[in-house]
Amino acid sequence: MTGELSIVGLGPGGPAHRTRAAADAIRDAQIVLGYQRYLRDCADLTGAHQRVLPSGIGAEQQRAEHAVHAAAGGARVAVVSSGDAGIYGMASLALTAAAALPPDRRPPVRVVPGITAAIAAGALLGAPLARDFACLTLSDLLAPWVAIEARLRAVAAADLVLALYNPRSRGRSWQLGRAREVLAEYRPGDTPVGLVTEAGRPGETVELSTLAGMNPASAGMHTVVIVGAAGTSRLGDWLVTARSLGVQASR
Amino acid sequence: MTGELSIVGLGPGGPAHRTRAAADAIRDAQIVLGYQRYLRDCADLTGAHQRVLPSGIGAEQQRAEHAVHAAAGGARVAVVSSGDAGIYGMASLALTAAAALPPDRRPPVRVVPGITAAIAAGALLGAPLARDFACLTLSDLLAPWVAIEARLRAVAAADLVLALYNPRSRGRSWQLGRAREVLAEYRPGDTPVGLVTEAGRPGETVELSTLAGMNPASAGMHTVVIVGAAGTSRLGDWLVTARSLGVQASR
Repeated sequence: MTGELSIVGLGPGGPAHRTRAAADAIRDAQIVLGYQRYLRDCADLTGAHQRVLPSGIGAEQQRAEHAVHAAAGGARVAVVSSGDAGIYGMASLALTAAAALPPDRRPPVRVVPGITAAIAAGALLGAPLARDFACLTLSDLLAPWVAIEARLRAVAAADLVLALYNPRSRGRSWQLGRAREVLAEYRPGDTPVGLVTEAGRPGETVELSTLAGMNPASAGMHTVVIVGAAGTSRLGDWLVTARSLGVQASR
Repeated sequence: MTGELSIVGLGPGGPAHRTRAAADAIRDAQIVLGYQRYLRDCADLTGAHQRVLPSGIGAEQQRAEHAVHAAAGGARVAVVSSGDAGIYGMASLALTAAAALPPDRRPPVRVVPGITAAIAAGALLGAPLARDFACLTLSDLLAPWVAIEARLRAVAAADLVLALYNPRSRGRSWQLGRAREVLAEYRPGDTPVGLVTEAGRPGETVELSTLAGMNPASAGMHTVVIVGAAGTSRLGDWLVTARSLGVQASR
């Protein structure tokens, strides 16, 4: 008997922004693993015929190994992430754990894509990501802050629109404020900024601000901050980046 | 009677990677507009009770204005893009066209997110986008090449994983080769590269290569090229970027 592992991105919240492939992978699994919040997001797909195994937010490495070993042992396993599992999600850890097994014990693995937080936030804001952008995380759990700040500077200097993941949490209070200071060395204070919290979930909020005016304390663990570039304008309640770059769009 | 406009991202191909919200928006529309290839992708959702209006690939501006005016005139309208409509798609043009109307004529507009090509390609390759990345287009239809090359240099210097959209088309033959030359000034020749063509469609191909070894001629209009960073490894047939940056991951 050969098991298989599906690494599934659930999208931003409930069923509306989930794909059919993601739903099928969860429904068909014998074992479903994930951070407890994300298992609640797909509770409509799981049932008593399955083993649903929640784990805490810091337990990613153990979860990845558990999922891989269960699949190697013959089970159909799904491990879930919110958003896309390949973007700050479970896919990197789970594929690395699978690759560490001897070839004859390695289960088939597939990654089922999902809508990542930057895209969900972008849609609620309008079209800020319309021409070239970067996704950066401000979490310094797995990186020294100096390396994160160097990436911020490079992206700011290149005039890319920026989506900031993990801008703030209980244990990390100053990083977004510092990121704002760094970006302000390169971009004017009236650069449009959007803060989207709990996209696609109850309690969803969308806040429009500017680089100078934004309040870092209004971001939390489930916020994505989108910082515009030179081509980004506020049009009414929308943030829109022009498709053209350094030239006038033809009309 | 007030119409409304939904700007819908279909995801990479057929129904498997489409969301329920996208499907609902198309089914509920009275008028559906889009490039003909993308209307075929959602032909399972449209029917004789709707007006389905295909247009050519160059007709984006006219399509955006047509969609906005039809919604302003009272119709429920959906305009579709492949992938995510906010990323090199119709959302920027359509929101700009809506904002140009007087406030009392402006229809309600919403953007329905979709899985963009970089995410679809990333899932087929493994987890190359796991820690910080940039999406850049190599199309110089709306930008001078010098500006595109400056962005390539900045992203390469910052060691971000890179997803290149529109790497090559019938009319644009040299841009990907030149991009490779530029990136090779910053990254070693054995940097992992993945080329994904027609993700999620019949004829889907996944090609693993390196910066030195890749053949630009194997890319086409429907290819996304993903170029790894220092943290990206080839693990068997997967491309995986480490979640950690500049530190050893804790085990």
